[in-house]
This record gives sequence, C-alpha cells and structure tokens, in this order.
Amino acid sequence: MARRPRQRAEETREDILSMAELLFRQRGFAAVSIADIASSLGMSPANVFKHFRSKASLVDAIAERHLGKATDRFAAFDEALPPQDQLLQFVLRLLDGHLQDIKENPYIFEMVLATIDAKLDAGNRYRERIIQKLEDIIRDGIASGRYHCSNLRDAASTVADVLASVLHPVLIAHDDKETLVRRAQHIVSFVDTALQNSPC
Amino acid sequence: MARRPRQRAEETREDILSMAELLFRQRGFAAVSIADIASSLGMSPANVFKHFRSKASLVDAIAERHLGKATDRFAAFDEALPPQDQLLQFVLRLLDGHLQDIKENPYIFEMVLATIDAKLDAGNRYRERIIQKLEDIIRDGIASGRYHCSNLRDAASTVADVLASVLHPVLIAHDDKETLVRRAQHIVSFVDTALQNSPC
Repeated sequence: MARRPRQRAEETREDILSMAELLFRQRGFAAVSIADIASSLGMSPANVFKHFRSKASLVDAIAERHLGKATDRFAAFDEALPPQDQLLQFVLRLLDGHLQDIKENPYIFEMVLATIDAKLDAGNRYRERIIQKLEDIIRDGIASGRYHCSNLRDAASTVADVLASVLHPVLIAHDDKETLVRRAQHIVSFVDTALQNSPC
Repeated sequence: MARRPRQRAEETREDILSMAELLFRQRGFAAVSIADIASSLGMSPANVFKHFRSKASLVDAIAERHLGKATDRFAAFDEALPPQDQLLQFVLRLLDGHLQDIKENPYIFEMVLATIDAKLDAGNRYRERIIQKLEDIIRDGIASGRYHCSNLRDAASTVADVLASVLHPVLIAHDDKETLVRRAQHIVSFVDTALQNSPC
C-alpha cells in the first residue's frame, strides 16, 4: 500500500531515533556518529541530516521522547496530602525517576554532559513542567492557609532552583540514594519553612 | 649547589603541574595526555606517573592549587553587616569568582566535567570551606537574634546544597550573569526566611 510522503518522513524520523538510542545504549554516546546511525539503517548520512542537523538536535528529540513519557512523575496525589507532604513526595518521585534513568540508560547521563552547553529545548520543557507542578502544590498551600506568597511563578521557580542538588543529573549521578533522600528531606523542610513565612 | 632529593621531588611535582596547566590552557584538557606533558618537560612518562598516577590526580592537584589561592572569596566582611547581607555578599563573591574561573580558564570547566565522577578531594575541600564560612555567617545571625537554629552544621550544609544552582560550575557556565545574580538574590532571600523561622 502506498504511503503519503509526510507519513513516511515521520516514520523515518522515528526509525532514526530508535536506531540512535539503540547504538548509544550499545556503544556509548560519544562513540556513535550520525554516519554510524545512517549506515545501520542502510540510509545515506545526508538523509539523516535532513531530519537532524546535528547530534544535539538528535539528543533533543530522544530526550523529549523519553521525558514526555515520564507522566507518572507529575501525576496527582491520591489523598489530599498537606502541601509539605506533596512537595516531598513530588521531589522523591522525581529523584527516583532520575536515578532510574541514569542507572538504566547510562548513555542519557553521557548525553546530558555532552550537550550541557546546548541548553536543549527538551530540558527547558521538562523544567517548565516541574515548575508548573510546584506552582500547583504552592497554590494548594496558599488555599489551605499554610503558605503566603504573592508571586507564585517566582516562588515555584526559586523552589526548582534550590532543588537542583537533588534533581540535576550531573549533581546526583555519583551520590548514593540514602544521602540524596536525606538531602531532599532537608531541602524540602527548608522550602516549607520559607514558603510559610515568605513575604514574596 | 646540591639539592636534597626531597626538595627536587617537590620541584618536579610543581614543574609537572605548571606544564600541565599550560598545555591544558593551550590545547584543551581532553587533547593533552600525560605522555604529552612528559615530553614537553623532557621527562619520561614513567617519571610523571611517579608523581601523578592518573589524569584525575593531576586535575585534583591543579584544582587544589587554584582553589587554595582563592582566599579573597572567604575573607571577612569589612563592616559588621547583618547576616542576610553577609550571606548575599558571600554568594555573589563566590559566583563572581566561579564565573571568572570559567571565563579565564575554560579548561577548568572541561576538567570539572571530565572528572565529575571522580569526586575529587579538591572539590570536597572547597565545599568544606564554603560550609564553614556559611556556619560563621549563621552563627553571627544567631548571636544577633535573627536566626534560630540548633544544628549549625546541618543548616550550613543545606544552605550549601540549595546554592548549587548559582555556584556549581556545570550549572552556571551557560547562564548570563544578570540571570544568575537575580537567581542568587531570590535564593538568599529564601534562605534568610528559612533560617529566621527554622526549628532546625
């Protein structure tokens, strides 16, 4: 059956991404070139370049596919937990997810390091989802009278910043989980105190 | 004049470090091998290995030499500033120093990335100095009645953690200074609020 060209372009794009992931996983991110990916697919490098102009744009698409699927990290909480407990649960869920990503797919960590100066869209979009979830939690806290905060966006953004040492892959990859969980508990209790008393 | 062997070993060590820094600066960290450093000094690689068993131990020594000299960042404040202003000044001094390091010596950033999994002693010692300075500031705040905190060490350590997004080289290398200063102000005001109200 004949396919329409647009459909095939999308399929080709997905094939390239899947092959890239496979090769990154097998050989490591640094060892795989766009030419390697093309030849494993029986395609010309020019054809791959039509879809991804650089290794960074490939990484961006792989990261987006991966992070877009991580919806469970942002799911609502079953019971109506107090905001400080929501905050801790959310942070521990993210921490857990990030540690699992690093463990199961070591090439993801290599990818993050190699493209750290590219400030990929996928990273920005993921950070934005985190900030929005933090806004939801802080809003709950304001509604329940625990938190006081006039600028929700600024507060959520600062909370995301102070959580870097327990969420950013580069900062968590080489600490053990127990240390990270204790650190997360300390930071969340700090954040909870600040949000209760903040004139922000 | 004859030199004692121990003295010469220390001098050789310093020569190796200086040559390594020079070559890293000229060619970038990844492009320089221990063999390159040896040949530029007219030494055998085995002789260099006697002093530094790995590139990571070389990096550790260079970082130590560099960070050990950064004493101005930890100097006392001229006037008796309120603790929240001491905190902000200290953070902005560190941020400034780190941005200058990255700008003047791009190979330092490359070194940090390449040895991020080695958890170098130089990094740990530098972090320890930061925590001690933070302890001093919090202690001042307790003495003046602004801060309340029973576990000084834990509090200082958590403050160091929440400052990662404005101090860690990997997290600041690609943001502009204005953004970082504003982020630092937000975090310090957060920290100040938490320390004023903390039951920690």
